[in-house]
Amino acid sequence: MAVIETGHSAGSLRAPDLATQRTLTVQELCTVFASTAAQRDKDGGTPKAERDLLRASGLLTMSIPVEHGGQGASWQQTLAAVREIARVDSSVAHVFAFHHLLLATARLFGQRQQWQPWFEQTVQQRWFWGNALNPLDERTTSIAHAGWREFSGQKSFCSGATDSDMLIVSALQADIGKLVIAAVPTGRAGIAVFQDWDNMGQRQTDSGSARFDALRVEEGEVLADPGPLSSPFACLRPLLAQLILANIYLGIAEGALAEAGQYTRTQSRRWHASPAASASEDLYVLAHYGEFHVGLAGARLLTDHAAALFDAAWQQDLALGDAQRGEVAVAVATAKVVASKTGLDLTSRMFEVSGARSTTAALRFDRYWRNLRVHTLHDPVDYKLRELGDWALNARYPTPSFYS
Amino acid sequence: MAVIETGHSAGSLRAPDLATQRTLTVQELCTVFASTAAQRDKDGGTPKAERDLLRASGLLTMSIPVEHGGQGASWQQTLAAVREIARVDSSVAHVFAFHHLLLATARLFGQRQQWQPWFEQTVQQRWFWGNALNPLDERTTSIAHAGWREFSGQKSFCSGATDSDMLIVSALQADIGKLVIAAVPTGRAGIAVFQDWDNMGQRQTDSGSARFDALRVEEGEVLADPGPLSSPFACLRPLLAQLILANIYLGIAEGALAEAGQYTRTQSRRWHASPAASASEDLYVLAHYGEFHVGLAGARLLTDHAAALFDAAWQQDLALGDAQRGEVAVAVATAKVVASKTGLDLTSRMFEVSGARSTTAALRFDRYWRNLRVHTLHDPVDYKLRELGDWALNARYPTPSFYS
Amino acid sequence: MAVIETGHSAGSLRAPDLATQRTLTVQELCTVFASTAAQRDKDGGTPKAERDLLRASGLLTMSIPVEHGGQGASWQQTLAAVREIARVDSSVAHVFAFHHLLLATARLFGQRQQWQPWFEQTVQQRWFWGNALNPLDERTTSIAHAGWREFSGQKSFCSGATDSDMLIVSALQADIGKLVIAAVPTGRAGIAVFQDWDNMGQRQTDSGSARFDALRVEEGEVLADPGPLSSPFACLRPLLAQLILANIYLGIAEGALAEAGQYTRTQSRRWHASPAASASEDLYVLAHYGEFHVGLAGARLLTDHAAALFDAAWQQDLALGDAQRGEVAVAVATAKVVASKTGLDLTSRMFEVSGARSTTAALRFDRYWRNLRVHTLHDPVDYKLRELGDWALNARYPTPSFYS
Amino acid sequence: MAVIETGHSAGSLRAPDLATQRTLTVQELCTVFASTAAQRDKDGGTPKAERDLLRASGLLTMSIPVEHGGQGASWQQTLAAVREIARVDSSVAHVFAFHHLLLATARLFGQRQQWQPWFEQTVQQRWFWGNALNPLDERTTSIAHAGWREFSGQKSFCSGATDSDMLIVSALQADIGKLVIAAVPTGRAGIAVFQDWDNMGQRQTDSGSARFDALRVEEGEVLADPGPLSSPFACLRPLLAQLILANIYLGIAEGALAEAGQYTRTQSRRWHASPAASASEDLYVLAHYGEFHVGLAGARLLTDHAAALFDAAWQQDLALGDAQRGEVAVAVATAKVVASKTGLDLTSRMFEVSGARSTTAALRFDRYWRNLRVHTLHDPVDYKLRELGDWALNARYPTPSFYS
Repeated sequence: MAVIETGHSAGSLRAPDLATQRTLTVQELCTVFASTAAQRDKDGGTPKAERDLLRASGLLTMSIPVEHGGQGASWQQTLAAVREIARVDSSVAHVFAFHHLLLATARLFGQRQQWQPWFEQTVQQRWFWGNALNPLDERTTSIAHAGWREFSGQKSFCSGATDSDMLIVSALQADIGKLVIAAVPTGRAGIAVFQDWDNMGQRQTDSGSARFDALRVEEGEVLADPGPLSSPFACLRPLLAQLILANIYLGIAEGALAEAGQYTRTQSRRWHASPAASASEDLYVLAHYGEFHVGLAGARLLTDHAAALFDAAWQQDLALGDAQRGEVAVAVATAKVVASKTGLDLTSRMFEVSGARSTTAALRFDRYWRNLRVHTLHDPVDYKLRELGDWALNARYPTPSFYS
Repeated sequence: MAVIETGHSAGSLRAPDLATQRTLTVQELCTVFASTAAQRDKDGGTPKAERDLLRASGLLTMSIPVEHGGQGASWQQTLAAVREIARVDSSVAHVFAFHHLLLATARLFGQRQQWQPWFEQTVQQRWFWGNALNPLDERTTSIAHAGWREFSGQKSFCSGATDSDMLIVSALQADIGKLVIAAVPTGRAGIAVFQDWDNMGQRQTDSGSARFDALRVEEGEVLADPGPLSSPFACLRPLLAQLILANIYLGIAEGALAEAGQYTRTQSRRWHASPAASASEDLYVLAHYGEFHVGLAGARLLTDHAAALFDAAWQQDLALGDAQRGEVAVAVATAKVVASKTGLDLTSRMFEVSGARSTTAALRFDRYWRNLRVHTLHDPVDYKLRELGDWALNARYPTPSFYS
Repeated sequence: MAVIETGHSAGSLRAPDLATQRTLTVQELCTVFASTAAQRDKDGGTPKAERDLLRASGLLTMSIPVEHGGQGASWQQTLAAVREIARVDSSVAHVFAFHHLLLATARLFGQRQQWQPWFEQTVQQRWFWGNALNPLDERTTSIAHAGWREFSGQKSFCSGATDSDMLIVSALQADIGKLVIAAVPTGRAGIAVFQDWDNMGQRQTDSGSARFDALRVEEGEVLADPGPLSSPFACLRPLLAQLILANIYLGIAEGALAEAGQYTRTQSRRWHASPAASASEDLYVLAHYGEFHVGLAGARLLTDHAAALFDAAWQQDLALGDAQRGEVAVAVATAKVVASKTGLDLTSRMFEVSGARSTTAALRFDRYWRNLRVHTLHDPVDYKLRELGDWALNARYPTPSFYS
Repeated sequence: MAVIETGHSAGSLRAPDLATQRTLTVQELCTVFASTAAQRDKDGGTPKAERDLLRASGLLTMSIPVEHGGQGASWQQTLAAVREIARVDSSVAHVFAFHHLLLATARLFGQRQQWQPWFEQTVQQRWFWGNALNPLDERTTSIAHAGWREFSGQKSFCSGATDSDMLIVSALQADIGKLVIAAVPTGRAGIAVFQDWDNMGQRQTDSGSARFDALRVEEGEVLADPGPLSSPFACLRPLLAQLILANIYLGIAEGALAEAGQYTRTQSRRWHASPAASASEDLYVLAHYGEFHVGLAGARLLTDHAAALFDAAWQQDLALGDAQRGEVAVAVATAKVVASKTGLDLTSRMFEVSGARSTTAALRFDRYWRNLRVHTLHDPVDYKLRELGDWALNARYPTPSFYS
């Protein structure tokens, strides 16, 4: 009986054996992830055991249609899983979510004869997809040859590239100044993925760098037809990315609130000048929790609403028009802004209701703020607000880009 | 052909004649209301013409079930009408909404043999119901006689009592310290409704005082069985009141945003130091609008969500349990807090995107803030947050009262 | 015995007789102004009685050096008087303050042979100066003739022009695109001052429009040498204007806090769900007051600090350098931003500690917010923050202009 | 030539040799501290090298009067040094400041014959004082014997006790329920100081626990006459503690702003959608910096103002009255609240102007927020606001306690 031990289990924790892991629910996985999340936040590095549990659980096939062997989940369902995982481990949630985003990237930018075999192999071989697409990092360039392209250069913020089986890679086709995106096996010669991610938050996302040395990319691996952002439908890709972020932000905040509440109820001391009998009856403490609740309740509805619109747009396939895509873009941006602001407020203020003793490093409660603070910098909230203002004032939908 | 002229139409505006008024839609009514709203805000007093348009429109029967001659609208539909009216005239929206609240009060606190004839006469005689219930004002007392009660004393904040046909009145039954609530014709001897409402906002709600001098209230008019707050179902009454407030707050904010946007697009001048070509392209202006959009989007979803839960609870009738009622209470309180805070922010900051010249008294843009500021003081947001905190932290539902 | 009756005294209030008015202190004037401020806010129009009290009090000579017959007050002292008046009447405070600003304008932009006689006549004839300078309104143009100029066109936002004795006027010298500023008697032929100010706030500032019809302006009345913004010293003029605004904003907020506090202590009712014995002991009420105090304490120190720097710079006269002027500009802008934000928050939130009944029109508590809301739109806070950011990040002083 | 090497100098950094260290200025010390602050934040533990540099610098005698061999600095000067150190290392600033607080504790609670020799030995032997006073931790009790007392039990949050020469210790005199405070050599038998501080912030303050096992405390070491909080003058002690906190909070925020600014100017990338030429010219970035500047400017004036009032009160010695002490208390509380809120906002938002790449662990920019977040939990800001509200509304000074 094969047993995967998570890196930090001190003998006592054992992940379920492989024979039964396929039936591990998201909730069960979360229990496992939660038990070591604080320690792994300290250690950083690759959450190898957790990634393998995800592989074994079958959840990596969640967004793949049933006809290709997947679970055929809606995006609302997949995002709900992302958010649930983010409550206990936002690093693992990120690489899990981006795996599905990268599958969707192939689907939206490529041909069926491309993505169908990739989907099927993802199911059969339990592939975990990793990211090397960062379009703002233009150091990787592409040279066209007959039937193939040669990618060379560096790429930063390659979340989940380590321990991945497939990579979505981008390069700048220098002669035409155009972004070329391709799917390649991570293990191919010419690809070096570095474990150089050491950050103040999201410490197990492996969002470090990669280098390509004369990497050979076959034409059939290039997502050139219909290609990136080629239609309103293809332009759903950045919206899915943004919606994933909103769900992770929200999950982090929900996790923080749950942990703060547990602490306040059981550990926090009533301030000596408080007329209340306990910290959990203190009027000021209650008002803070009221504000936390109110903030999260709005963020939750906005995020769920955006996901529902997203699923409806996804169903349209190439029939999707600019206006419907625009409505999704507005809803997604709105949700992301609110989840970002609400979460940052909550993860910083949670200490005011848990108290001084809750800052002990043993609890690592600061990881909620650190994870959220890092992740919410993906793209500036100021420019999201500008876009939303342009919508509210001038009735212009956000201009599609890799961030809108 | 009878023509109702609204008080401030300068000859040019004429309300539709009575023969066709029944088919006036909410949208059409709003157009009429909007045309004089600023002037009526200045004048204060009773919106008699607007009240009569509502009578004529049939909208006063909106929440009455079809079987009793009404339109059988859901609360979601009725509240949508309230919000739409509040966008252009929050005073009229208030008396319209409270009319329906008072019908619901009879339904929730009384017997079918009581409310059924009231409902039917409301349909047939186009009754407009007014409010004299304020439970915090205990100056009106009730003395029990054989078969009737005698109400005497004063009552404040009697919104919509002026020009009403029926009143919901409360009195303190002194011997038992219990609130007695009854429905009586406004015109009955012993009732004096004063037109003494002069306030900084909500100026046409007639929320002034009333006095009862040995008012005779028949037992059959007293809502004693099942009585006020007698069951989770009866306890929906305060939730409907709070949900109405949330919708009015939201409507005010939506109306303010619409008016500010129109002004910015067409009138506002670009600040001389701005690099933008116009005020409506200024980066700071856009960010403000983005924030307004984000705030309203959340408030809207929360308010609609609460209304959906409310309708579901209403369907339960006496089968409604504490937990489901509690869920509605939490959702309603959340929506009200957000609508309040979002609206106050927007109605104050809107001037920063419309500019100095938009403060001319001719526009009366300040009425949005004044109306909202006054109305959001109905009950303190601090104590709503306390309740929500008690829910979020201690899993306690709000304790039912006339405000929760 | 001559008695000046203020317009709205209902027989009972009598202003001190003229024989003793010269010795009326600012505090005594404020008592008089306060007694009618709410009513005058309702009425709008020119505060003629109050203007005459100011004339009689000698306070219009406050900033004029002793050698020219004035009181020789420092700007710190003059601004303290402005702030004190603003606590009870921000309209009167504005025209009072701008009178001194306009004297300073003559001093900073003109020659001694120009301003000395104006100063002396202001003392002797109790002149009240009014404003017609608005540099953003370029509708008034100037044509040069031999020895005089002809001003024609309109000008908006002419605060205090009504009932003034002298005006500072600006016109665009069309051929050279340059602003020409002059001081002329208000009564001169060719000047029409309109009483067309009807605004949601600052209702007695007479900030309406003026029109010039071939107004003859003598060369000796033109402030051409050294001229507007001609040196760091001359560039103190906009800083004085901004500093006046900061003091008025702060005064409004202080007045609002004083009135709210008085009401909470004596009138506000404890919320029924509050565990406190009275509204003034309620934990949430106290926290709001704590926040108000904290906000005002900072605004006060910043404003006083800026005034101290301003006085020191003023003492430098033409020796004033760019750096010292820049330091003053930064301090003034900082104070103005804080006074603006703090005041808007306080004047809107004050109702949450005074309660629903404090919204009665009889009290007109909303005038604090209305006055501040209007006045804080003088120039956008966003662009002040941009300037301050450029200072904080890039160590660049604000570029002098009529607003910086 | 003796050379002290700071723990993390990689060979290149050498602290000045002991022969010249006495003349190390605060600024020079800060340069040394800054060079290793990020690494030491990572490592935690005792800043032994830095403590020894402080000993050698003579700064530990700063607040000791000249007549006793000290530098005779005012509290304003001492606090300025604290703030300057906090900009680069808030842990070292804390133990440095509390050293002076503990000297002041002896001065305020004890007799001259007690503190004079302690002061003189502090000068002569370069004593560093540590803290074991936490009055909220009542686990250490005192038993009275003839001429001495026996302290036993535990004590938490003993900042700077490790590597200290003298300790201020408190114990609960069980029979009378009164706090007993004494000064004892850290090395005395019966005292165990644990290096068990592992926290998310302020990681080198050694704020761990101590245990006393039948510790013998001589009567002459007990600060019983005049004793803790025995007079308005003695009640300056908690105000000094709070004022130290305000200065540290402010220093942290100032340090964060300096570092963010440096990064934005030299490293941050302009967002691709920004119309600006560089990040440091982006309108949104500038507005953020403007807000940071505005917040800090107010906090700085409030903190300096409180320190000036504190020095004046300190000069009063036992003549200090309740009212003057109350004024200081209000000013100190105000400063602390503002420094806390401003700093938390800045240290979290600084990343929005430095950008995603500034989150690399190599920079450890998150330590500003972590340090401030931990330290601002010393006592709840909510209850400070309550006190300030009680002052603003009810004109009651804060009731003296160890936190007010």
